[in-house]
Amino acid sequence: MAFEQTYLTLADIEAARARIGPYVRRTPVLTSEVLDDAAGARLYFKCENLQQIGAFKARGATNAVFALSEAEAAHGVATHSSGNHGSAVARAAKLRGVPAYIVMPEGAARPKAIQIERLGGQITYCAPTQAARETGVAEVIARTGATLIHPYDNRLVMAGQGTAALELMEDAPDLDMVLAPIGGGGLVSGVSTAVKALRPAARMIGVEPAGADDAARSFAAGRLIPLTEVNTLADGLRASLSADTFAHIRRGVDEIATVSEAAIVDAMRALWEALKVVVEPSAAVAYAAIRDGRVEARGRRVGVILTGGNVDLDRLPWVKA
Amino acid sequence: MAFEQTYLTLADIEAARARIGPYVRRTPVLTSEVLDDAAGARLYFKCENLQQIGAFKARGATNAVFALSEAEAAHGVATHSSGNHGSAVARAAKLRGVPAYIVMPEGAARPKAIQIERLGGQITYCAPTQAARETGVAEVIARTGATLIHPYDNRLVMAGQGTAALELMEDAPDLDMVLAPIGGGGLVSGVSTAVKALRPAARMIGVEPAGADDAARSFAAGRLIPLTEVNTLADGLRASLSADTFAHIRRGVDEIATVSEAAIVDAMRALWEALKVVVEPSAAVAYAAIRDGRVEARGRRVGVILTGGNVDLDRLPWVKA
Repeated sequence: MAFEQTYLTLADIEAARARIGPYVRRTPVLTSEVLDDAAGARLYFKCENLQQIGAFKARGATNAVFALSEAEAAHGVATHSSGNHGSAVARAAKLRGVPAYIVMPEGAARPKAIQIERLGGQITYCAPTQAARETGVAEVIARTGATLIHPYDNRLVMAGQGTAALELMEDAPDLDMVLAPIGGGGLVSGVSTAVKALRPAARMIGVEPAGADDAARSFAAGRLIPLTEVNTLADGLRASLSADTFAHIRRGVDEIATVSEAAIVDAMRALWEALKVVVEPSAAVAYAAIRDGRVEARGRRVGVILTGGNVDLDRLPWVKA
Repeated sequence: MAFEQTYLTLADIEAARARIGPYVRRTPVLTSEVLDDAAGARLYFKCENLQQIGAFKARGATNAVFALSEAEAAHGVATHSSGNHGSAVARAAKLRGVPAYIVMPEGAARPKAIQIERLGGQITYCAPTQAARETGVAEVIARTGATLIHPYDNRLVMAGQGTAALELMEDAPDLDMVLAPIGGGGLVSGVSTAVKALRPAARMIGVEPAGADDAARSFAAGRLIPLTEVNTLADGLRASLSADTFAHIRRGVDEIATVSEAAIVDAMRALWEALKVVVEPSAAVAYAAIRDGRVEARGRRVGVILTGGNVDLDRLPWVKA
């Protein structure tokens, strides 16, 4: 019997919202007359950079950790993301009072380790390869019985990320279009599910760096084409889709746009300047598609998800060292 | 007959709130677990950097411009501030459909002129001295019949700035303490009036750069001591108090703290890092007083007004050129 694809539902996302409500922020939606004039559109920026741990990842990780049974949770949770998802898992585990095991590559930026330790995460270092990270997590799980919380190939994580779209559509009704960046596809899976359920007329657009365009290639080819080479400063978008997130993209995404590195930096700076918020490069790609004319937004009401704000303030991409 | 000092009232601020409601944002109050842990306090940051034109100045200017009679307004409004207040006056005049005349010193940063022109302000250049600015405004007013909107020595401006405190106290109830920066004193006059009326138990603290400490000196001496020398990168706080704002400070402020330039830069960076918002140096001084231990906040619920976010993103004070 062939594997039958199932899909995330609006009910999953509503359940996630109820579950994570006490632990995450209802982030503001910001607007800018300057950016609206530049785009000839009404832009509604959902500021997940203002979310706990500075990224939407708090939503999915919290949903996955709090959905565990008491017996499962008691053994703790594990992941090998040292970025925003790692912080999100550590924070959720701390809130639930269970251990979080985070496998990090040696040589990872020290601030990330400090942040995870502050959140009570127990770090295990491994060699800086994908294989070593996966082996490292497998070993931790074998030793502790912890549950793996995958950064995106996990329905509870996908559902949690989708809660951002519920709030966006409440605060900015009657959207004609919603844009979200695509890395591993967890965010866009959840967001597109919510958008297509509640506002089917809205166009759902995913955006990727041209230097990490597996979703665009896969979408065009109709089959999953993993990344073989990655070249982007948008470090949150370097992951490849999973079969499941790809299936959700095929179901719920109308278009995938790609943007250049220069367009990402330009959009990032424009967002800081006009909205007065700190967004990381990965968070600027959706707006970059509008600003650089890769998506036709003129005259539309457009929701844009700003995914995170964790950047090295000493190394801004527009400041020459 | 001696001059009798009168004071701003809560009713003035409530009237301002009703008047400016359609034209300004109800800005969010943000919190940070990291900053709370560092301070041992609960900090509620009122994000006026996310206000229209990127600063609380939109409140006061909008109140003053919209309070004018039709006959007065028809001749337009004028000011010689080229900073946030200039933008705020230009925007308010545009919304009311009347001319705004902004006198700017030659050599002022070009982005400020671009912003004011975008908002429809008519710029007149003058020599870069205080005397030339005042003469320039007087000439514009003589020629046009425009009404001067002083950046702080104006009761309607003071009342408008106070509306930020009404919102802060609604979103963060039971505050033990409220901190606001002091430049010319318009903000602290309005904020202290609102705080002492609605939450008399709360301690009202003004904060100044040590390099522009006329309010601290005047407060200690019991008489107005204008600045003779200014040395701070907090360019929004270089003005001297007026007799009227000083009277309001003596009535409503319990304590004035001063902070070093290093503490301002450190606080500014910490706010960007933890809150993911862009604040200008002037906006960081209130938090700097807590971070640098100049104000005892431990165990308290503290409201902190972040006043603005207009900075040159190419020249951040912690990035060495």
